[in-house]
This record gives sequence, structure tokens and C-alpha cells, in this order.
Amino acid sequence: MHLAAFVQAGPVSGHHGGWRHPDADTDVLSADYYARLGKLLEEGRFDLLFLADILAVPQRFEGSLDSQLRYGALGALRLEPLITLATVAAHTRHLGLASTISTSYFEPFAVARSLATLDHLSAGRAAWNIVTSFQQAEAANFGLSEQLSREARYERAEEFVEIACKLWDSWEDGAVARDKAAPLFADPAKVAAINHQGKYFRVQGPLNVSRPPQGRPVFIQAGASGRGRDFAAKWADVIFVNHSSLESAQAFYAEMKGRAASHGRDPASLKILPGIVPVVAESDAQAQAADRQLQALAVPQAGLSTLSYHLDIDLAQFPQDEILPDMDVPGVQGHYKEVAELTRKQGLTLSELGHRYGVGTLRDFVGSGKAVADTMEAWYRGQACDGFMIQASYLPGGMEQFVRLTIPELQDRGLFRREYSGSTLRDHLGLARP
Amino acid sequence: MHLAAFVQAGPVSGHHGGWRHPDADTDVLSADYYARLGKLLEEGRFDLLFLADILAVPQRFEGSLDSQLRYGALGALRLEPLITLATVAAHTRHLGLASTISTSYFEPFAVARSLATLDHLSAGRAAWNIVTSFQQAEAANFGLSEQLSREARYERAEEFVEIACKLWDSWEDGAVARDKAAPLFADPAKVAAINHQGKYFRVQGPLNVSRPPQGRPVFIQAGASGRGRDFAAKWADVIFVNHSSLESAQAFYAEMKGRAASHGRDPASLKILPGIVPVVAESDAQAQAADRQLQALAVPQAGLSTLSYHLDIDLAQFPQDEILPDMDVPGVQGHYKEVAELTRKQGLTLSELGHRYGVGTLRDFVGSGKAVADTMEAWYRGQACDGFMIQASYLPGGMEQFVRLTIPELQDRGLFRREYSGSTLRDHLGLARP
Repeated sequence: MHLAAFVQAGPVSGHHGGWRHPDADTDVLSADYYARLGKLLEEGRFDLLFLADILAVPQRFEGSLDSQLRYGALGALRLEPLITLATVAAHTRHLGLASTISTSYFEPFAVARSLATLDHLSAGRAAWNIVTSFQQAEAANFGLSEQLSREARYERAEEFVEIACKLWDSWEDGAVARDKAAPLFADPAKVAAINHQGKYFRVQGPLNVSRPPQGRPVFIQAGASGRGRDFAAKWADVIFVNHSSLESAQAFYAEMKGRAASHGRDPASLKILPGIVPVVAESDAQAQAADRQLQALAVPQAGLSTLSYHLDIDLAQFPQDEILPDMDVPGVQGHYKEVAELTRKQGLTLSELGHRYGVGTLRDFVGSGKAVADTMEAWYRGQACDGFMIQASYLPGGMEQFVRLTIPELQDRGLFRREYSGSTLRDHLGLARP
Repeated sequence: MHLAAFVQAGPVSGHHGGWRHPDADTDVLSADYYARLGKLLEEGRFDLLFLADILAVPQRFEGSLDSQLRYGALGALRLEPLITLATVAAHTRHLGLASTISTSYFEPFAVARSLATLDHLSAGRAAWNIVTSFQQAEAANFGLSEQLSREARYERAEEFVEIACKLWDSWEDGAVARDKAAPLFADPAKVAAINHQGKYFRVQGPLNVSRPPQGRPVFIQAGASGRGRDFAAKWADVIFVNHSSLESAQAFYAEMKGRAASHGRDPASLKILPGIVPVVAESDAQAQAADRQLQALAVPQAGLSTLSYHLDIDLAQFPQDEILPDMDVPGVQGHYKEVAELTRKQGLTLSELGHRYGVGTLRDFVGSGKAVADTMEAWYRGQACDGFMIQASYLPGGMEQFVRLTIPELQDRGLFRREYSGSTLRDHLGLARP
């Protein structure tokens, strides 16, 4: 089983009420916050820390920044992920480090170089969560009056990733000779331009950083539209996905493993990690009490504001005491599926849905360390996943409880490592070096 | 007196023979290298570490990458500076951290955010070396068949920096309330869009990172063309410049302080730091011996290759046993002035000039700790500078000797701090918070 920690370098990582918890550390602008988090995750033998990202303060809900800022919602504030991960790298030795980077608003040379740098400085622990970005507010921060269509974004992403791979391979392994006597710092016979000319990019190369320790960073993808699933099946080493039930997780798992096979890949080389928000305590009753406390801290508008951003639709335009109408959403298809399923099953009003979305749509992971491990094991053995993306209800407490109470249960069952057996993120995930 | 360390996250920091020194650490891809360097500089009470950067392996000389790679010249390989500085930040507490970032190949939103992130995570130690980039090889890595003209590059840079300032100010100080009870994470009344519409950029804002601890990072500039000097006089807190003599340093110092005044600035708020390559040992004789050893390690083609890149002219096209002809160079005017002065005074052949350029054009800083401190004091009291950009002949040894032998001399004379008196880079430089 593989475990990743889903974190945002801002107020909310998994629960919109979390930052209001009396024990929550809200000093999310300080290096110590990330240093402590990295050490905690390494103590828990996590595969990786995943930093989500967006390139704007969302303003879909009511056409305003207000609810995001006021309620400390998911996009209120976020530090740049690569720099934040370099901070974590300095305080850890094994933990994988995954940065979200958009293929729509950056250049492949710069991104390939940054990820190669992080992979070198962390001795092979870098991962790239490849996103195409979908928010109007992001486009408006990067000079575009309209964002690219989904199809164009994915087409650009394909070319972007191809170029990045060419750049990482533009230095052969062993090109850096460091031969003082010859002198031969790097062997010119092992470094070559790439001369890429495509639809979206022209890039001469070579990269000015040598081949990363992992060959290339681990690729993570979360696209849940048809186009996104295709992209993930072709490129991703790890898929991050949200579900509101075991059944939808199982269906997605079977579909994606099949898609990977149809791309000629070994399905086992694609790791599928659904996001869960565990609330763990010494006993089930204590966990239920902790969950009630957290739920009371989540403001419905915070979740609605974030859901508006995820769907890229202003949900303030609909009656708050009626259910979410069926619609086509321009935003993240996976999040729409998740809330549409919930609406269909439970008939929550929009306001109730906002609250629920803000605390996590999946309520199956509240309980004692043993109970939560039971459910995780059932999902894992039930072919719903290869592990989980853990979203702490609040930091550091929510993650501390998970590490202290659930991980030993998983270890005792032989489901999760007691010690790291390798040093790179590819080692942790059991992935070959390209 | 202010001291900065000029470093490249690659083989050469100040001397093209340096990496071949028997004691040189060539493990420039490892985090430990930068961690140790940061600690050494902080032990020496340096104001800041300056990371130079370019966005390509230079290929001006002979139209090829070969000499840069083979001889481990200045642009053979370089890690991305922001991520590298975040690594240094994690191992230091006071040292300023300056990243070179081009205004020609990045977007203002992304750059403002990265620098704000570094400033937050380092608790107020970030600086930005603003460059406009001038190499054809860089343009070719970012999709351009031709680079922008110098005038257009500086025009874009002006707008770029204006936007960055607006973005840093898009969150008022104190906007992040973190009030759990209210709830009020951030106060919407203190965060606003910037809605910038200019010639080169349209940026909506606000930034998704709150105002940096220093208000804005310290600005460094090295442009030595007329246009570059204008830009520096208006924007720069620190100027980095190379000279081949005391006289040219004094002339430049007087001119730039005057230009700053004509922009309505206090000339004292502009710090001018010439680059020097000190070779320091226990005695003058030992320093001369160390210098001879280093000079023997520098290959003329390495320096010529780097000079070709700096001038943006292939110097292989001229006879190597004749002097550099007079010419207009598209590249860095400051480097041309420096070598033109040397050619005029000393009549070096091109091959000799290449060797000299590779080891440092200024030969006045070779000697005992006391002798080098004497020369530094003469420059400082002679109104040639406000301090120095120290380029170690090799790392870590060249810098260790400087810290061990020269800095105590400067401290004993009351010229340089014994302890840091503040915590931010602005504190070290005596600059007000904007």
C-alpha cells in the first residue's frame, strides 16, 4: 500500500473547518511548519508529500474573493510549491516531494529544469503533478482574456511533457565526468540539443541541468474528464482522484488499469490513490466526537466557494435550499461526478452540499486507528486503490493521530512498510527508472 | 562595508580553473554543497549569497556547446536558483538569498509569487537579481527565433517590475488575520485585484501569497549599458559590476550615485558592489603560489568561451594571437568595457585575454589576509564601492581562506560586522522596508 499526504501550502489541506481547530497550526507561511510536517510524514514512512496548487485566488463564487479569504477556503493563499518542497527536502531524507505545475502557464524548459533541480537536490525524490489549469482567474493572471479549451490544454500538455522528457534525456547518464586532470567537466559527446519544433513550442535545448537521479521525476495526474483519463493512462505513474463511495472507486480503478494496459503498459506501474480525510482517535466514540467538533467549524459558504472554483461555476446563482441541478461544468469533471453522486443518493440542499464538500464527501474514514485501518484494508483488497492520498482534517494534529494510531495497524497487517527500503521516490513506489 | 558571495550553482563561481583545484568540491548537484556553503557564508557574516543564472548552455564560441561542457566553463551546467536558495535558507538564519530571474522569459505573476514565497520561508531574506537576458541560446529555449531588442527587453523589464510591486502590495500588511473564532482567515478589505493592463502584460491579481516580510525583496541589477544603468539607478538596491581597475570602479561609483540622486533617491540607498576574485593565504608569498597554481589550471578556451557568451560574439572568428578588435557587441556592455580596457592597457592576445578573463581581470586581490583587506579598505575609502561581490577562486577552499584570514582583518578595522544586528536582508543592508 502506498501513502501520500495531500497538502496545500495554505489554510486548508483536507477540511475547510480544520484551520479553526483549537490545536491547528495556522502559521502556514513559516518554514518550520513545512519542516515539521516533512519530519512527521517521514516518521510515518509516507511515500510522498503532494503539494496542490492553483495560480490565483478563486473568485467564482459570487464573483468575489471574499469567501475564499474570509473563511480560509482552499485557495485563499498558497505558497509556491517547488520552493516549499525544497524546504521540506532539506529536513527529510526519504520522503517523496510532489509539486503541482501547470502546463498551460509555464514553459517546458523552465519546468523541466526546476524539476531536475529538485530531483538532484533531494537525491531522487521529485514528482510532478501535471495539471492543465481550468480557472478563468488563472488565465487572467497570465495575460489571457480566455483560457484555452480543454482539448487545446491537453494537446499543449502532451507536447509539454514530451519536451520535458526530451530535455531530461538531453544529458545521458554519466555525462558529468568531473575529471579534473583531463580536463573534462562534462562529456560533449553525451549532451545534445533536442531541436523540438511542435504546434505549441519550439525548444532548442539541451537542458542546462544534467539528467535527474530518477531519470525523470515521477508523474502524477488527477484529470478525471475523458481526455484527462486518457492522458493519465498514457503518462501517469500515480493517479490522485476523489470519490464519494467505494463503488465508484472500484469502477474507476478497473477502468484506469484497463486503459493503462491498452496503452501497452503494465497496469501495476500505474498507482491509483483516492483522497480520504481520516479522523482518527483512540476509540470510535472519540473519533466521532472529534469529527462533530470539526464539522461544526466548517462554514457552508467555504465549501460552496471551493466547489464553485472546482466546477468553475458560480453556485451562488442557484437557490441554496434546493439540490444541485444537473449541468455541464467547465471545471473538474471528477469533482462534479463526486457531488452529483452525493446529490443523487442523499438529496442534500446546495447549502448542505457546500458544508459536506468542505469537510470531505467521503465519510467512511472516521474511527479508531483500527477501524480506519479496517476500511483502508477493505478498499485496498477490494481493488479500489493501490493506496491513499491522506488529507489531514487539520495540521499537524489530524496527521499526527493518523501516523500514531492507523499506520502501526497497517504495518502490523503487513500492508505498509515499517522502514524505507530504497532512497528514491521511484524505489518507494516500486517503479523502474526510465 | 557589505559583502556578497557571487556563486553559480555549477562548476565555476569566480575562476575557470577553480573546479580543477585538488581541494575543490565538484559535487555541485548535491544539497550538502549548498548547505555547507550557506553555513560558511553565515559564519563569515556575509550580507547575502548571490546566485547567477542563465537559461541555456552557451554556444556562442565556435557555435558549439563543447568548450563550455568540456572545460567546465561558467555556463556548463546550473541548477535552478530559487530551489537552490530554498535549500540554503533551510540551513541558515541570517544570510540574504539572491536569485537571478529573467524578465524576458517568465511571467510577472509567477516571479512575484516565487520571490514572495522565498521571502516568507526565509523570514525576510530574499533578493531578486533582475536580468533581461541577452543570449540567442536562451531565446531558442523559450520559443523565440530572435530575442527582443535591448530596448524592448528593458521596456518589458520596467513593466514587469512594476507589476511585481503591485502584486506584492495587493495584500496589505496585516491582511492575514488567522482569527479562528470569527472566522476570518484573511481580511477581504485588505486584499485587492491590481487589474494591470500594459504594453507587455495584462495581470488581474491579487497575488495568492500575502505581502512578503520585507515588503518586497531587495532588488539587484547588473546592467552596464546606458539603458541598464538607467534601470539600475531607478530600481536597484544593490548593483553588481565588474571592473578591471580601481579607476574605472571609482568613475562608475560616482556616476551611479549621481544617477540615483537624479531619480530623487538617497544615493546611500544604492549599494554598489564590484566583483573580486580574492586569492588569500597566510602570507603574500603563499597567496602568490596559490594563484600560480590556480592560473595553471585555467584553459584559455574556457575563458574565451565564456567571454564569447558574455559579449554574444563568437571570438573564435578572430586570430587568437592578435588583440581583440574594437567592435560593437550585442551582449553585456560592462564585460566589454572591462576587457577593452585591459586590451588597451596590456595588449594581451585574444588567447591571453581568454585565460585572463577566465581567472578574473582584476589581479589586485591576491595576498595575505591583511594585504587583501588593505586593498579592500582602499577601494572602500576611495569611493569605489560600498562593499564587494566575492567570487571564490574555488569552493569551498577559496571562500574558507577569505572568511578565515580576511574577514577578521576587516572586522578588526571596524569595517565589517562581527555579528548580524538584524534578521532580514534589508536590515543587513540598512535599507528601509517599502
